Amino acid sequence: MPTRMRLTDIDLLETLSSSEYAKFLKEFQERRFIKNEILYLPNNEENSVFLVKCGKVRVYLAYEDKEFTLSILEPGDVYSTHTRAFIQAMEDTIILVTDVRTFQKIVVDSPAFSLNMVKVLGDLLKNSITIINGLVFKDIYLRLTEFLVQAVEDKGIPVQQGIKLELGLTTGEIAQIVGATRQTVSVILNDLRKSGILEKVNRRTILIKDLKKLQEINSGF
Amino acid sequence: MPTRMRLTDIDLLETLSSSEYAKFLKEFQERRFIKNEILYLPNNEENSVFLVKCGKVRVYLAYEDKEFTLSILEPGDVYSTHTRAFIQAMEDTIILVTDVRTFQKIVVDSPAFSLNMVKVLGDLLKNSITIINGLVFKDIYLRLTEFLVQAVEDKGIPVQQGIKLELGLTTGEIAQIVGATRQTVSVILNDLRKSGILEKVNRRTILIKDLKKLQEINSGF
Repeated sequence: MPTRMRLTDIDLLETLSSSEYAKFLKEFQERRFIKNEILYLPNNEENSVFLVKCGKVRVYLAYEDKEFTLSILEPGDVYSTHTRAFIQAMEDTIILVTDVRTFQKIVVDSPAFSLNMVKVLGDLLKNSITIINGLVFKDIYLRLTEFLVQAVEDKGIPVQQGIKLELGLTTGEIAQIVGATRQTVSVILNDLRKSGILEKVNRRTILIKDLKKLQEINSGF
Repeated sequence: MPTRMRLTDIDLLETLSSSEYAKFLKEFQERRFIKNEILYLPNNEENSVFLVKCGKVRVYLAYEDKEFTLSILEPGDVYSTHTRAFIQAMEDTIILVTDVRTFQKIVVDSPAFSLNMVKVLGDLLKNSITIINGLVFKDIYLRLTEFLVQAVEDKGIPVQQGIKLELGLTTGEIAQIVGATRQTVSVILNDLRKSGILEKVNRRTILIKDLKKLQEINSGF
């Protein structure tokens, strides 16, 4: 697979530290949060925009008995305070906050900001689609991940990049085993690949890159 | 409720018709589709960016037995050909297409494009979260929408903007009737509000703005 061309490979913090952006930074207010602290609750009344200066921030949906992570924001990432998600510091974190009206003025002059938002939103959307696929195909997800975890125990070959599974089965044959259509199993395998959990080596061989995450899926839904 | 401040109220087609953008338009190729035609299938290999010139385009996820609409793109909206969604013409449609490398060059010079993408992605994300809420709370969604449809039949008062429901019940009391927590009913009512289906008039009165859509939800999941 060729590396995908990305629109949005810009380090916003580096951009901001250049002298022409110094005037923008004046418009931001610094706020500090300790590890695990909630930055913003869903539907926070404050309509602001923030930029992660240092640390790591998790954006997630929480229900009575489960949570779905939509994205992990890193230094340079821009996000909004007014969404339906919880926003939490994963480590000690500093953010720079400004109101949406000021941000609008900045953004019109500076494509770096809006390109970063495209990146952040694209990532959130990607994870949302994975979550929707997971919820729609919940039972098949569970049967397929169980099948893979079992196969790792039975015939997994530890290699440098993870665990190699010489299944000797095509996607259609796996589909028959877990009781789904080939198309559905393809969608799920593609999701697992996008989440960095596995890689297809060839038509009948899979490389499990993150066994822990694969096992977690079983308890995730 | 005050009208929300939006970052991204820019008409890209109008911007593009100005003379300084004429050089950008040269980089785009025109493609025409008739009503109901599929523009791009999921995971299309072509990594391009397109701009809706006229018509209407639906972005949706399709499973064996259901579909979820993520967004309706309108003239001026920018989107990618390489996603996990189906992209379909809702009416006769013309799009302008360019490869992602060319688009990257254009975007760095022109915040109008990236702001439009922020708008489009924000909209897709908003609908994705509504879909996730719907899937997580499937049973409660059904019970709550059934409760509202029944209430419309029993005591709906037609008014200019829709149907007024003087329920005389708080969210907590509705939650008890449909067998859910107050918080969950709040989340769902908020989703229905964001989808333009209803509006809360006061603590005990709801205005149903789109009864048809409310009824459709019952068959949607």
